[in-house]
Amino acid sequence: MAAAPYKLILLRHGESEWNAKNLFTGWVDVDLNGKGEKEATRGGELLKEAGLLPDVLHTSVLKRAIRTAQIALSVADRHWIPVSRSWRLNERHYGALQGKDKAQTLAEFGEEQFMLWRRSFDTPPPPLEDGTEFSQSDDARYATIPSELLPRTECLKDVVERMLPYWYDAIVPDLLTGRTVMVTAHGNSLRALVKHLDGVSDADIAGLNIPTGIPLSYELDADFRPLNPGGTYLDPSAADAAIEAVKNQGKK
Amino acid sequence: MAAAPYKLILLRHGESEWNAKNLFTGWVDVDLNGKGEKEATRGGELLKEAGLLPDVLHTSVLKRAIRTAQIALSVADRHWIPVSRSWRLNERHYGALQGKDKAQTLAEFGEEQFMLWRRSFDTPPPPLEDGTEFSQSDDARYATIPSELLPRTECLKDVVERMLPYWYDAIVPDLLTGRTVMVTAHGNSLRALVKHLDGVSDADIAGLNIPTGIPLSYELDADFRPLNPGGTYLDPSAADAAIEAVKNQGKK
Repeated sequence: MAAAPYKLILLRHGESEWNAKNLFTGWVDVDLNGKGEKEATRGGELLKEAGLLPDVLHTSVLKRAIRTAQIALSVADRHWIPVSRSWRLNERHYGALQGKDKAQTLAEFGEEQFMLWRRSFDTPPPPLEDGTEFSQSDDARYATIPSELLPRTECLKDVVERMLPYWYDAIVPDLLTGRTVMVTAHGNSLRALVKHLDGVSDADIAGLNIPTGIPLSYELDADFRPLNPGGTYLDPSAADAAIEAVKNQGKK
Repeated sequence: MAAAPYKLILLRHGESEWNAKNLFTGWVDVDLNGKGEKEATRGGELLKEAGLLPDVLHTSVLKRAIRTAQIALSVADRHWIPVSRSWRLNERHYGALQGKDKAQTLAEFGEEQFMLWRRSFDTPPPPLEDGTEFSQSDDARYATIPSELLPRTECLKDVVERMLPYWYDAIVPDLLTGRTVMVTAHGNSLRALVKHLDGVSDADIAGLNIPTGIPLSYELDADFRPLNPGGTYLDPSAADAAIEAVKNQGKK
């Protein structure tokens, strides 16, 4: 067991084909687009420039996170590190909104309902029916998960609850070995983790956005609490600009 | 423990930048070139067309094998499967020949010595000195391997000996779960594995070549011996043509 501080890097995947189209994605397995690949490359360059090299990787089972990590690690010459993947790091399941246009949803349901689904801590969208177009009920990668555990919709509170077992059982043990751990995941699974790490309240987490492709570095004490609360972006000014852009999403 | 037959897929990485330049590569971590990426893509298409979808992946710690697997699995929509990597699946360490031109080496040392180094079962090339240009003695990925275990040169016999512990301890347990296991590796680490599986003699293994990018499928019995000796290439005519081409390597 290595001594604190423990080194953790969070990396949100770059832009996907559906981000660009302004569609709710959730668990739909959409690939990165060209811009997303460039963001992942930049993420890898930032790791390299900072000399902050991951020793072990954790990702979701979604292609946009997997490929972001592959690209960034290849650039940082760390393509060879061990990797674990889990559905518990997946994006929030967006329920019946998956595949829907964000602006159209906003127009159809009004700003109040729209913002409730997007930012409320404990109000999930309507569930997605099994066997429908954007459902994952028949997806081989989830075949070992009991049906009653498999999400059909989630609010951020649900994401925190299903993500934390993976944090405690898979990521913390890797941190304890003294290795630098990178977690490459999604806007909401990373917000759930940051909420836990920084002790962000249920109300305040609504206003917290994590930019894509910019590594967020944490140093954690012996209780796995941040020595640098809120973490440190490897490119702070790009992070500030990107956070502003995320806030305006869905408003066009 | 699932019952036999067990399903194993071997995939040799596509052409690398140094394959194309006709240089001895060994443990030097050279990336795929454009042709290699296309071969990997084709490998993924063959898996998909055959409906032979890997459930778990094992690779070496070298980029050309790692990326071949990433590309092929992405094409086959299996990017999300668990992966393990080991130096024990690496290419044969080519010793002091690493980085040298194959045709030049042939001219310098003569056909007899050249073929001995390339194809003899138990004659390794001269060892590569630590700290020199193409040595791996300071490579972070091998930092946990005791210095006396880290190869400085290898013959195929050495590869068999260092590869087999990984076969028994990591790959066989995965086969025992009933999952389809893919091993993405290198000409010589795969020849070492095929030698073991098919019980090829020390003499006969010299004449056995494995083509790049064409999945080689084995069904194994309860003793992990092939029900289809020699395996089954998913594109047999392309495999035949490629095997001929490998035989003529270094002769230009």
